Amino acid sequence: MPLYLVGAGISARYLTLRAIQLIGSADVVYIDTYTSIAPGIDEELVTRLNPRARIVKASRELLEQGSRRIVEEAQRMNVVVLVPGDPLHATTHIALLLEARRAGVDAEVVPGVSGLQAVVDATGLQVYRFGRPVTLVYPEEGFKPYSTIDVVRNNRRAGLHTMVLLDLRLDEGRAMTVPEAVELLLSLEEELAHEEGWEPELRDAVIVGVARAGLEDGVCIAGRPEEVASASYPPPPHTLVVTAPRLHPMEAEALKTLCGCKSC
Amino acid sequence: MPLYLVGAGISARYLTLRAIQLIGSADVVYIDTYTSIAPGIDEELVTRLNPRARIVKASRELLEQGSRRIVEEAQRMNVVVLVPGDPLHATTHIALLLEARRAGVDAEVVPGVSGLQAVVDATGLQVYRFGRPVTLVYPEEGFKPYSTIDVVRNNRRAGLHTMVLLDLRLDEGRAMTVPEAVELLLSLEEELAHEEGWEPELRDAVIVGVARAGLEDGVCIAGRPEEVASASYPPPPHTLVVTAPRLHPMEAEALKTLCGCKSC
Repeated sequence: MPLYLVGAGISARYLTLRAIQLIGSADVVYIDTYTSIAPGIDEELVTRLNPRARIVKASRELLEQGSRRIVEEAQRMNVVVLVPGDPLHATTHIALLLEARRAGVDAEVVPGVSGLQAVVDATGLQVYRFGRPVTLVYPEEGFKPYSTIDVVRNNRRAGLHTMVLLDLRLDEGRAMTVPEAVELLLSLEEELAHEEGWEPELRDAVIVGVARAGLEDGVCIAGRPEEVASASYPPPPHTLVVTAPRLHPMEAEALKTLCGCKSC
Repeated sequence: MPLYLVGAGISARYLTLRAIQLIGSADVVYIDTYTSIAPGIDEELVTRLNPRARIVKASRELLEQGSRRIVEEAQRMNVVVLVPGDPLHATTHIALLLEARRAGVDAEVVPGVSGLQAVVDATGLQVYRFGRPVTLVYPEEGFKPYSTIDVVRNNRRAGLHTMVLLDLRLDEGRAMTVPEAVELLLSLEEELAHEEGWEPELRDAVIVGVARAGLEDGVCIAGRPEEVASASYPPPPHTLVVTAPRLHPMEAEALKTLCGCKSC
Protein backbone atom coordinates (compact mmCIF):
# COMPACT_ATOMS: atom_id res chain seq x y z
CA MET A 1 0.00 0.00 0.00
CA PRO A 2 1.19 3.54 -0.51
CA LEU A 3 2.21 6.49 1.63
CA TYR A 4 0.83 9.77 0.39
CA LEU A 5 2.39 13.08 1.43
CA VAL A 6 -0.48 15.39 0.67
CA GLY A 7 -0.36 19.19 0.58
CA ALA A 8 -3.46 20.59 2.25
CA GLY A 9 -2.95 24.11 0.91
CA ILE A 10 -3.19 27.34 2.87
CA SER A 11 -6.67 26.68 4.30
CA ALA A 12 -9.47 24.14 4.04
CA ARG A 13 -10.87 26.08 1.05
CA TYR A 14 -7.66 25.34 -0.80
CA LEU A 15 -7.93 21.56 -0.55
CA THR A 16 -7.59 20.03 -4.02
CA LEU A 17 -9.84 17.36 -5.52
CA ARG A 18 -6.87 15.01 -5.43
CA ALA A 19 -6.27 15.65 -1.72
CA ILE A 20 -9.96 15.10 -0.95
CA GLN A 21 -9.96 11.84 -2.89
CA LEU A 22 -6.86 10.53 -1.12
CA ILE A 23 -8.12 11.51 2.34
CA GLY A 24 -11.38 9.78 1.47
CA SER A 25 -9.70 6.46 0.71
CA ALA A 26 -7.14 6.52 3.54
CA ASP A 27 -7.06 4.08 6.45
CA VAL A 28 -4.97 6.45 8.57
CA VAL A 29 -4.52 10.21 8.26
CA TYR A 30 -1.68 11.93 10.08
CA ILE A 31 -2.40 15.65 10.35
CA ASP A 32 0.75 17.71 10.65
CA THR A 33 -0.54 20.81 12.42
CA TYR A 34 2.73 21.58 14.14
CA THR A 35 5.12 22.73 11.46
CA SER A 36 2.71 25.21 9.89
CA ILE A 37 -0.76 26.78 10.15
CA ALA A 38 -3.64 26.21 7.75
CA PRO A 39 -7.05 27.24 9.10
CA GLY A 40 -9.60 24.46 8.98
CA ILE A 41 -7.13 21.63 8.37
CA ASP A 42 -8.11 19.63 11.45
CA GLU A 43 -9.61 16.41 12.76
CA GLU A 44 -13.14 17.62 12.21
CA LEU A 45 -12.53 18.22 8.52
CA VAL A 46 -10.85 14.86 8.00
CA THR A 47 -13.65 13.09 9.87
CA ARG A 48 -16.18 14.74 7.59
CA LEU A 49 -14.26 13.63 4.50
CA ASN A 50 -13.61 10.13 5.82
CA PRO A 51 -15.53 8.97 8.91
CA ARG A 52 -13.82 5.57 9.00
CA ALA A 53 -10.19 6.78 8.95
CA ARG A 54 -8.04 6.68 12.04
CA ILE A 55 -6.82 10.23 12.64
CA VAL A 56 -3.57 11.10 14.36
CA LYS A 57 -2.55 14.65 15.22
CA ALA A 58 1.14 14.43 14.44
CA SER A 59 3.84 16.50 16.04
CA ARG A 60 7.06 17.05 14.19
CA GLU A 61 8.67 14.62 16.69
CA LEU A 62 6.16 11.90 15.84
CA LEU A 63 6.80 12.38 12.12
CA GLU A 64 10.54 12.26 12.67
CA GLN A 65 11.16 9.76 15.47
CA GLY A 66 8.06 7.75 14.61
CA SER A 67 8.78 7.66 10.89
CA ARG A 68 9.61 3.94 10.87
CA ARG A 69 6.22 3.11 12.35
CA ILE A 70 4.46 5.27 9.76
CA VAL A 71 6.37 3.58 6.94
CA GLU A 72 5.57 0.13 8.33
CA GLU A 73 1.91 1.06 8.52
CA ALA A 74 2.03 2.12 4.89
CA GLN A 75 3.10 -1.41 3.94
CA ARG A 76 -0.28 -2.73 5.09
CA MET A 77 -2.58 0.29 4.87
CA ASN A 78 -3.39 3.43 2.93
CA VAL A 79 -1.60 6.18 4.85
CA VAL A 80 -1.97 9.90 4.22
CA VAL A 81 0.25 12.49 5.86
CA LEU A 82 -1.64 15.76 5.47
CA VAL A 83 0.64 18.80 5.55
CA PRO A 84 -0.44 22.47 5.54
CA GLY A 85 0.66 24.24 2.34
CA ASP A 86 2.93 22.20 0.13
CA PRO A 87 4.11 18.86 1.53
CA LEU A 88 7.82 19.12 0.76
CA HIS A 89 8.62 22.53 2.25
CA ALA A 90 10.06 20.90 5.38
CA THR A 91 13.02 18.55 5.59
CA THR A 92 10.92 16.34 7.89
CA HIS A 93 8.68 15.35 5.01
CA ILE A 94 11.48 14.81 2.51
CA ALA A 95 13.13 12.48 5.05
CA LEU A 96 9.87 10.57 5.51
CA LEU A 97 9.47 10.21 1.75
CA LEU A 98 13.00 8.85 1.39
CA GLU A 99 12.60 6.44 4.29
CA ALA A 100 9.47 5.03 2.68
CA ARG A 101 11.16 4.61 -0.70
CA ARG A 102 14.15 2.91 0.95
CA ALA A 103 11.73 0.45 2.55
CA GLY A 104 10.23 -0.27 -0.86
CA VAL A 105 6.99 1.52 -0.01
CA ASP A 106 5.33 3.31 -2.89
CA ALA A 107 5.42 6.88 -1.58
CA GLU A 108 3.87 9.72 -3.53
CA VAL A 109 4.00 13.48 -3.16
CA VAL A 110 0.82 15.44 -3.87
CA PRO A 111 1.63 19.14 -4.27
CA GLY A 112 -0.57 21.70 -2.50
CA VAL A 113 -1.13 25.44 -2.69
CA SER A 114 2.01 26.80 -1.07
CA GLY A 115 2.10 29.58 1.49
CA LEU A 116 5.20 31.02 -0.19
CA GLN A 117 3.33 31.33 -3.48
CA ALA A 118 0.35 32.94 -1.73
CA VAL A 119 2.71 35.58 -0.33
CA VAL A 120 4.12 36.33 -3.79
CA ASP A 121 0.54 36.61 -5.12
CA ALA A 122 -0.49 38.96 -2.29
CA THR A 123 2.30 41.41 -3.15
CA GLY A 124 2.04 41.34 -6.94
CA LEU A 125 5.85 41.16 -7.08
CA GLN A 126 7.31 39.08 -9.92
CA VAL A 127 8.18 35.53 -8.97
CA TYR A 128 11.21 35.73 -11.30
CA ARG A 129 12.77 38.45 -9.18
CA PHE A 130 12.90 36.47 -5.96
CA GLY A 131 16.28 35.18 -4.85
CA ARG A 132 16.87 32.49 -2.28
CA PRO A 133 14.26 32.45 0.51
CA VAL A 134 15.33 32.53 4.13
CA THR A 135 13.86 31.92 7.59
CA LEU A 136 14.20 34.41 10.44
CA VAL A 137 14.32 32.52 13.73
CA TYR A 138 14.09 33.82 17.28
CA PRO A 139 17.50 34.67 18.79
CA GLU A 140 18.49 32.34 21.62
CA GLU A 141 21.15 32.44 24.24
CA GLY A 142 24.48 32.44 22.43
CA PHE A 143 22.86 32.57 18.99
CA LYS A 144 21.67 35.42 16.80
CA PRO A 145 20.38 34.75 13.27
CA TYR A 146 22.85 37.02 11.47
CA SER A 147 22.86 34.69 8.45
CA THR A 148 19.38 35.96 7.57
CA ILE A 149 20.91 39.39 7.01
CA ASP A 150 23.59 37.87 4.76
CA VAL A 151 20.95 36.26 2.54
CA VAL A 152 18.95 39.48 2.28
CA ARG A 153 22.09 41.50 1.46
CA ASN A 154 23.27 39.02 -1.16
CA ASN A 155 19.87 38.98 -2.82
CA ARG A 156 19.66 42.78 -2.82
CA ARG A 157 23.13 43.09 -4.29
CA ALA A 158 21.95 40.79 -7.09
CA GLY A 159 18.87 42.98 -7.60
CA LEU A 160 16.49 40.43 -6.11
CA HIS A 161 13.69 40.30 -3.55
CA THR A 162 13.89 38.08 -0.46
CA MET A 163 11.07 36.07 1.05
CA VAL A 164 11.72 36.07 4.80
CA LEU A 165 9.77 33.29 6.53
CA LEU A 166 9.11 33.97 10.19
CA ASP A 167 9.72 31.54 13.03
CA LEU A 168 6.68 29.47 13.92
CA ARG A 169 6.84 27.40 17.10
CA LEU A 170 3.33 26.19 17.47
CA ASP A 171 4.27 23.64 20.12
CA GLU A 172 5.58 26.53 22.24
CA GLY A 173 2.64 28.77 21.36
CA ARG A 174 4.92 31.28 19.63
CA ALA A 175 4.76 32.72 16.13
CA MET A 176 6.84 35.69 15.06
CA THR A 177 4.83 38.69 13.87
CA VAL A 178 5.73 41.24 11.21
CA PRO A 179 6.42 44.06 13.74
CA GLU A 180 8.68 41.75 15.79
CA ALA A 181 10.47 40.60 12.64
CA VAL A 182 11.08 44.14 11.36
CA GLU A 183 12.56 45.20 14.68
CA LEU A 184 14.73 42.09 14.85
CA LEU A 185 15.97 42.47 11.25
CA LEU A 186 16.92 46.13 11.76
CA SER A 187 18.78 45.46 14.99
CA LEU A 188 20.60 42.42 13.57
CA GLU A 189 21.64 44.47 10.54
CA GLU A 190 22.84 47.32 12.73
CA GLU A 191 24.95 45.03 14.91
CA LEU A 192 26.45 43.24 11.91
CA ALA A 193 27.12 46.49 10.05
CA HIS A 194 28.84 47.95 13.10
CA GLU A 195 30.96 44.85 13.56
CA GLU A 196 31.92 44.49 9.90
CA GLY A 197 32.16 48.19 9.14
CA TRP A 198 29.52 48.83 6.50
CA GLU A 199 26.42 51.05 6.26
CA PRO A 200 23.04 49.60 7.24
CA GLU A 201 20.58 49.92 4.35
CA LEU A 202 17.37 48.24 5.41
CA ARG A 203 16.00 51.40 7.11
CA ASP A 204 15.60 52.88 3.63
CA ALA A 205 14.42 49.70 1.91
CA VAL A 206 10.88 48.99 0.83
CA ILE A 207 9.66 46.01 2.79
CA VAL A 208 6.34 44.19 2.76
CA GLY A 209 4.53 42.67 5.71
CA VAL A 210 2.07 39.96 4.77
CA ALA A 211 -0.33 38.29 7.20
CA ARG A 212 -2.48 35.28 6.32
CA ALA A 213 -1.75 35.47 2.59
CA GLY A 214 -4.52 34.03 0.44
CA LEU A 215 -6.99 33.89 3.34
CA GLU A 216 -10.13 36.01 3.61
CA ASP A 217 -8.70 38.18 6.38
CA GLY A 218 -5.26 38.48 4.75
CA VAL A 219 -3.41 41.80 4.98
CA CYS A 220 -0.48 43.22 2.99
CA ILE A 221 1.37 46.41 4.03
CA ALA A 222 4.32 47.79 2.05
CA GLY A 223 6.57 50.74 2.77
CA ARG A 224 9.51 51.79 4.91
CA PRO A 225 10.24 49.52 7.87
CA GLU A 226 8.72 51.89 10.45
CA GLU A 227 5.46 52.09 8.46
CA VAL A 228 5.27 48.32 8.04
CA ALA A 229 6.11 47.69 11.71
CA SER A 230 3.48 50.11 13.02
CA ALA A 231 0.55 48.70 11.02
CA SER A 232 -1.86 46.23 12.59
CA TYR A 233 -2.21 42.67 11.38
CA PRO A 234 -4.52 39.71 11.91
CA PRO A 235 -3.03 36.64 13.67
CA PRO A 236 -0.12 34.64 12.13
CA PRO A 237 1.11 33.16 9.84
CA HIS A 238 3.04 36.31 8.99
CA THR A 239 5.76 36.72 6.36
CA LEU A 240 8.09 39.52 5.39
CA VAL A 241 9.42 40.42 1.96
CA VAL A 242 12.47 42.62 1.60
CA THR A 243 12.39 44.05 -1.92
CA ALA A 244 15.29 44.59 -4.26
CA PRO A 245 16.83 48.09 -4.30
CA ARG A 246 14.92 48.81 -7.50
CA LEU A 247 11.33 47.91 -8.27
CA HIS A 248 10.02 47.28 -11.77
CA PRO A 249 7.36 49.96 -12.51
CA MET A 250 4.63 47.30 -12.49
CA GLU A 251 5.88 46.00 -9.15
CA ALA A 252 5.83 49.51 -7.67
CA GLU A 253 2.26 49.93 -8.86
CA ALA A 254 1.33 46.52 -7.45
CA LEU A 255 2.74 47.41 -4.03
CA LYS A 256 0.86 50.73 -4.07
CA THR A 257 -2.39 49.15 -5.16
CA LEU A 258 -2.35 45.87 -3.24
CA CYS A 259 -0.33 46.82 -0.16
CA GLY A 260 -0.90 50.60 0.19
CA CYS A 261 2.74 51.55 -0.33
CA LYS A 262 3.35 55.30 -0.13
CA SER A 263 7.10 55.16 -0.73
CA CYS A 264 7.06 52.90 -3.85
CA MET B 1 -19.04 42.77 -9.07
CA PRO B 2 -15.60 41.23 -8.77
CA LEU B 3 -12.91 39.92 -11.07
CA TYR B 4 -11.34 36.70 -9.84
CA LEU B 5 -7.94 35.56 -11.07
CA VAL B 6 -8.12 31.91 -10.21
CA GLY B 7 -5.24 29.43 -10.21
CA ALA B 8 -6.42 26.15 -11.73
CA GLY B 9 -3.42 24.17 -10.52
CA ILE B 10 -1.34 21.75 -12.57
CA SER B 11 -4.27 19.60 -13.73
CA ALA B 12 -8.02 19.28 -13.22
CA ARG B 13 -7.35 17.03 -10.22
CA TYR B 14 -5.59 19.92 -8.55
CA LEU B 15 -8.57 22.28 -8.67
CA THR B 16 -9.23 23.68 -5.19
CA LEU B 17 -12.61 23.89 -3.48
CA ARG B 18 -12.33 27.67 -3.69
CA ALA B 19 -11.69 27.56 -7.44
CA ILE B 20 -14.65 25.21 -7.96
CA GLN B 21 -16.91 27.47 -5.93
CA LEU B 22 -15.88 30.59 -7.87
CA ILE B 23 -16.25 28.91 -11.26
CA GLY B 24 -19.68 27.71 -10.12
CA SER B 25 -20.92 31.22 -9.39
CA ALA B 26 -19.32 32.98 -12.37
CA ASP B 27 -21.24 34.62 -15.21
CA VAL B 28 -18.22 34.50 -17.52
CA VAL B 29 -15.15 32.26 -17.36
CA TYR B 30 -12.09 33.13 -19.40
CA ILE B 31 -9.86 30.07 -19.73
CA ASP B 32 -6.24 30.97 -20.29
CA THR B 33 -4.94 27.89 -22.07
CA TYR B 34 -2.28 29.72 -24.01
CA THR B 35 0.37 30.75 -21.50
CA SER B 36 0.65 27.34 -19.86
CA ILE B 37 -0.57 23.73 -19.93
CA ALA B 38 -2.79 22.06 -17.34
CA PRO B 39 -4.42 18.80 -18.51
CA GLY B 40 -8.19 18.84 -18.16
CA ILE B 41 -8.55 22.58 -17.62
CA ASP B 42 -10.88 23.14 -20.55
CA GLU B 43 -14.34 24.21 -21.70
CA GLU B 44 -15.83 20.80 -20.96
CA LEU B 45 -14.72 20.93 -17.32
CA VAL B 46 -16.01 24.47 -16.82
CA THR B 47 -19.34 23.58 -18.46
CA ARG B 48 -19.70 20.67 -16.07
CA LEU B 49 -18.99 22.91 -13.08
CA ASN B 50 -21.21 25.73 -14.34
CA PRO B 51 -23.57 25.03 -17.27
CA ARG B 52 -24.88 28.61 -17.36
CA ALA B 53 -21.55 30.43 -17.58
CA ARG B 54 -20.36 32.00 -20.81
CA ILE B 55 -16.97 30.45 -21.58
CA VAL B 56 -14.24 32.20 -23.53
CA LYS B 57 -11.00 30.51 -24.56
CA ALA B 58 -8.63 33.38 -24.01
CA SER B 59 -5.38 33.90 -25.84
CA ARG B 60 -2.68 35.95 -24.21
CA GLU B 61 -3.52 38.69 -26.72
CA LEU B 62 -7.15 38.75 -25.65
CA LEU B 63 -6.14 38.99 -21.98
CA GLU B 64 -3.72 41.80 -22.76
CA GLN B 65 -5.33 43.87 -25.55
CA GLY B 66 -8.85 43.01 -24.43
CA SER B 67 -8.18 43.70 -20.75
CA ARG B 68 -10.34 46.83 -20.68
CA ARG B 69 -13.35 44.88 -21.93
CA ILE B 70 -12.80 42.18 -19.29
CA VAL B 71 -12.55 44.80 -16.54
CA GLU B 72 -15.73 46.53 -17.79
CA GLU B 73 -17.53 43.21 -17.76
CA ALA B 74 -16.44 42.67 -14.17
CA GLN B 75 -18.24 45.89 -13.19
CA ARG B 76 -21.57 44.26 -14.10
CA MET B 77 -20.88 40.53 -13.82
CA ASN B 78 -19.01 37.87 -11.92
CA VAL B 79 -15.91 37.25 -14.02
CA VAL B 80 -13.39 34.46 -13.48
CA VAL B 81 -10.09 34.27 -15.34
CA LEU B 82 -8.95 30.69 -14.91
CA VAL B 83 -5.18 30.28 -15.24
CA PRO B 84 -3.20 26.99 -15.25
CA GLY B 85 -0.97 26.70 -12.19
CA ASP B 86 -0.77 29.81 -10.07
CA PRO B 87 -2.52 32.90 -11.45
CA LEU B 88 0.23 35.48 -10.94
CA HIS B 89 3.17 33.71 -12.57
CA ALA B 90 2.76 35.78 -15.73
CA THR B 91 3.02 39.56 -16.06
CA THR B 92 -0.17 39.42 -18.15
CA HIS B 93 -2.23 38.55 -15.12
CA ILE B 94 -0.57 41.04 -12.77
CA ALA B 95 -1.32 43.75 -15.35
CA LEU B 96 -4.96 42.65 -15.56
CA LEU B 97 -5.27 42.71 -11.77
CA LEU B 98 -3.84 46.23 -11.58
CA GLU B 99 -6.07 47.49 -14.39
CA ALA B 100 -9.12 46.20 -12.54
CA ARG B 101 -8.08 47.82 -9.27
CA ARG B 102 -7.40 51.12 -11.06
CA ALA B 103 -10.95 50.99 -12.43
CA GLY B 104 -12.27 50.46 -8.90
CA VAL B 105 -13.20 46.84 -9.61
CA ASP B 106 -12.85 44.50 -6.67
CA ALA B 107 -10.24 42.09 -8.08
CA GLU B 108 -9.07 39.10 -6.12
CA VAL B 109 -6.24 36.61 -6.61
CA VAL B 110 -6.92 32.97 -5.76
CA PRO B 111 -3.63 31.04 -5.51
CA GLY B 112 -3.36 27.66 -7.20
CA VAL B 113 -0.97 24.70 -7.08
CA SER B 114 2.03 26.04 -8.94
CA GLY B 115 3.96 24.14 -11.58
CA LEU B 116 7.23 25.48 -10.13
CA GLN B 117 6.39 24.00 -6.74
CA ALA B 118 5.46 20.68 -8.33
CA VAL B 119 8.90 20.57 -9.97
CA VAL B 120 10.63 21.19 -6.63
CA ASP B 121 8.49 18.43 -5.09
CA ALA B 122 9.34 15.99 -7.89
CA THR B 123 13.07 16.39 -7.29
CA GLY B 124 13.09 16.38 -3.48
CA LEU B 125 15.54 19.30 -3.59
CA GLN B 126 15.19 21.84 -0.79
CA VAL B 127 13.12 24.88 -1.70
CA TYR B 128 15.46 27.04 0.42
CA ARG B 129 18.39 26.27 -1.86
CA PHE B 130 16.80 27.61 -5.04
CA GLY B 131 18.08 30.92 -6.32
CA ARG B 132 16.34 33.12 -8.84
CA PRO B 133 14.36 31.14 -11.45
CA VAL B 134 14.90 31.78 -15.15
CA THR B 135 13.25 31.01 -18.48
CA LEU B 136 15.12 29.49 -21.41
CA VAL B 137 13.60 30.76 -24.64
CA TYR B 138 14.16 29.62 -28.21
CA PRO B 139 16.97 31.49 -29.95
CA GLU B 140 15.77 33.72 -32.77
CA GLU B 141 17.47 35.55 -35.57
CA GLY B 142 19.84 38.04 -33.97
CA PHE B 143 19.07 36.84 -30.45
CA LYS B 144 20.49 34.10 -28.26
CA PRO B 145 19.35 33.68 -24.64
CA TYR B 146 22.82 34.02 -23.06
CA SER B 147 21.31 35.68 -20.00
CA THR B 148 19.94 32.30 -18.93
CA ILE B 149 23.54 31.11 -18.55
CA ASP B 150 24.37 34.17 -16.45
CA VAL B 151 21.54 33.41 -14.02
CA VAL B 152 22.57 29.74 -13.72
CA ARG B 153 26.21 30.70 -13.16
CA ASN B 154 25.38 33.33 -10.55
CA ASN B 155 23.15 30.92 -8.67
CA ARG B 156 25.79 28.19 -8.77
CA ARG B 157 28.46 30.55 -7.54
CA ALA B 158 26.17 31.33 -4.60
CA GLY B 159 25.74 27.60 -3.96
CA LEU B 160 22.14 27.55 -5.22
CA HIS B 161 19.98 25.52 -7.60
CA THR B 162 18.30 27.09 -10.62
CA MET B 163 14.83 26.33 -11.90
CA VAL B 164 15.01 26.70 -15.68
CA LEU B 165 11.55 27.12 -17.19
CA LEU B 166 11.37 26.05 -20.81
CA ASP B 167 9.82 28.07 -23.62
CA LEU B 168 6.18 27.23 -24.25
CA ARG B 169 4.57 28.68 -27.35
CA LEU B 170 1.27 26.92 -27.48
CA ASP B 171 -0.13 29.27 -30.12
CA GLU B 172 2.73 28.20 -32.41
CA GLY B 173 2.43 24.56 -31.40
CA ARG B 174 5.94 24.56 -29.88
CA ALA B 175 7.11 23.56 -26.41
CA MET B 176 10.77 23.09 -25.58
CA THR B 177 11.69 19.62 -24.36
CA VAL B 178 14.34 18.62 -21.82
CA PRO B 179 16.71 17.15 -24.46
CA GLU B 180 16.41 20.30 -26.60
CA ALA B 181 16.98 22.47 -23.54
CA VAL B 182 20.08 20.56 -22.41
CA GLU B 183 21.65 20.83 -25.84
CA LEU B 184 20.81 24.53 -26.07
CA LEU B 185 22.17 25.27 -22.57
CA LEU B 186 25.45 23.48 -23.23
CA SER B 187 26.01 25.20 -26.55
CA LEU B 188 25.11 28.63 -25.17
CA GLU B 189 27.51 28.11 -22.29
CA GLU B 190 30.27 26.98 -24.62
CA GLU B 191 29.87 30.03 -26.85
CA LEU B 192 29.77 32.43 -23.91
CA ALA B 193 32.74 30.76 -22.21
CA HIS B 194 34.77 30.95 -25.41
CA GLU B 195 33.88 34.61 -25.90
CA GLU B 196 34.51 35.65 -22.31
CA GLY B 197 37.45 33.35 -21.66
CA TRP B 198 36.31 31.03 -18.90
CA GLU B 199 35.87 27.27 -18.52
CA PRO B 200 32.42 25.74 -19.23
CA GLU B 201 31.20 23.80 -16.20
CA LEU B 202 27.72 22.55 -17.00
CA ARG B 203 29.00 19.35 -18.69
CA ASP B 204 30.05 18.17 -15.23
CA ALA B 205 27.02 19.52 -13.36
CA VAL B 206 24.18 17.42 -12.02
CA ILE B 207 21.05 18.51 -13.81
CA VAL B 208 17.47 17.31 -13.52
CA GLY B 209 14.94 16.92 -16.31
CA VAL B 210 11.34 16.99 -15.14
CA ALA B 211 8.34 16.29 -17.35
CA ARG B 212 4.73 16.77 -16.25
CA ALA B 213 5.60 17.31 -12.59
CA GLY B 214 2.82 16.30 -10.22
CA LEU B 215 0.85 14.50 -12.94
CA GLU B 216 0.25 10.76 -13.08
CA ASP B 217 2.64 10.26 -15.99
CA GLY B 218 5.29 12.60 -14.60
CA VAL B 219 8.97 11.72 -15.04
CA CYS B 220 12.12 12.96 -13.30
CA ILE B 221 15.66 12.12 -14.53
CA ALA B 222 18.78 13.39 -12.79
CA GLY B 223 22.43 13.01 -13.74
CA ARG B 224 25.05 14.40 -16.08
CA PRO B 225 23.68 16.40 -19.02
CA GLU B 226 24.22 13.60 -21.55
CA GLU B 227 22.29 11.13 -19.38
CA VAL B 228 19.43 13.55 -18.85
CA ALA B 229 19.30 14.50 -22.53
CA SER B 230 19.22 10.90 -23.74
CA ALA B 231 16.32 9.76 -21.52
CA SER B 232 12.79 9.64 -22.85
CA TYR B 233 10.01 11.83 -21.53
CA PRO B 234 6.25 12.13 -21.82
CA PRO B 235 4.87 15.25 -23.58
CA PRO B 236 5.47 18.80 -22.19
CA PRO B 237 5.37 20.75 -19.93
CA HIS B 238 9.06 20.05 -19.31
CA THR B 239 11.36 21.85 -16.87
CA LEU B 240 15.07 21.68 -16.13
CA VAL B 241 16.83 22.15 -12.81
CA VAL B 242 20.55 22.89 -12.71
CA THR B 243 21.75 21.97 -9.26
CA ALA B 244 24.28 23.79 -7.10
CA PRO B 245 27.90 22.54 -7.28
CA ARG B 246 27.32 20.74 -3.96
CA LEU B 247 24.28 18.75 -2.95
CA HIS B 248 23.17 18.32 0.64
CA PRO B 249 23.38 14.56 1.47
CA MET B 250 19.58 14.36 1.71
CA GLU B 251 19.26 16.07 -1.66
CA ALA B 252 21.69 13.61 -3.23
CA GLU B 253 19.66 10.74 -1.83
CA ALA B 254 16.44 12.34 -3.07
CA LEU B 255 17.83 12.68 -6.60
CA LYS B 256 18.99 9.03 -6.54
CA THR B 257 15.70 7.75 -5.19
CA LEU B 258 13.22 9.95 -7.01
CA CYS B 259 15.07 10.69 -10.25
CA GLY B 260 17.43 7.72 -10.67
CA CYS B 261 20.62 9.75 -10.41
CA LYS B 262 23.77 7.65 -10.76
CA SER B 263 26.25 10.49 -10.38
CA CYS B 264 24.78 12.09 -7.24
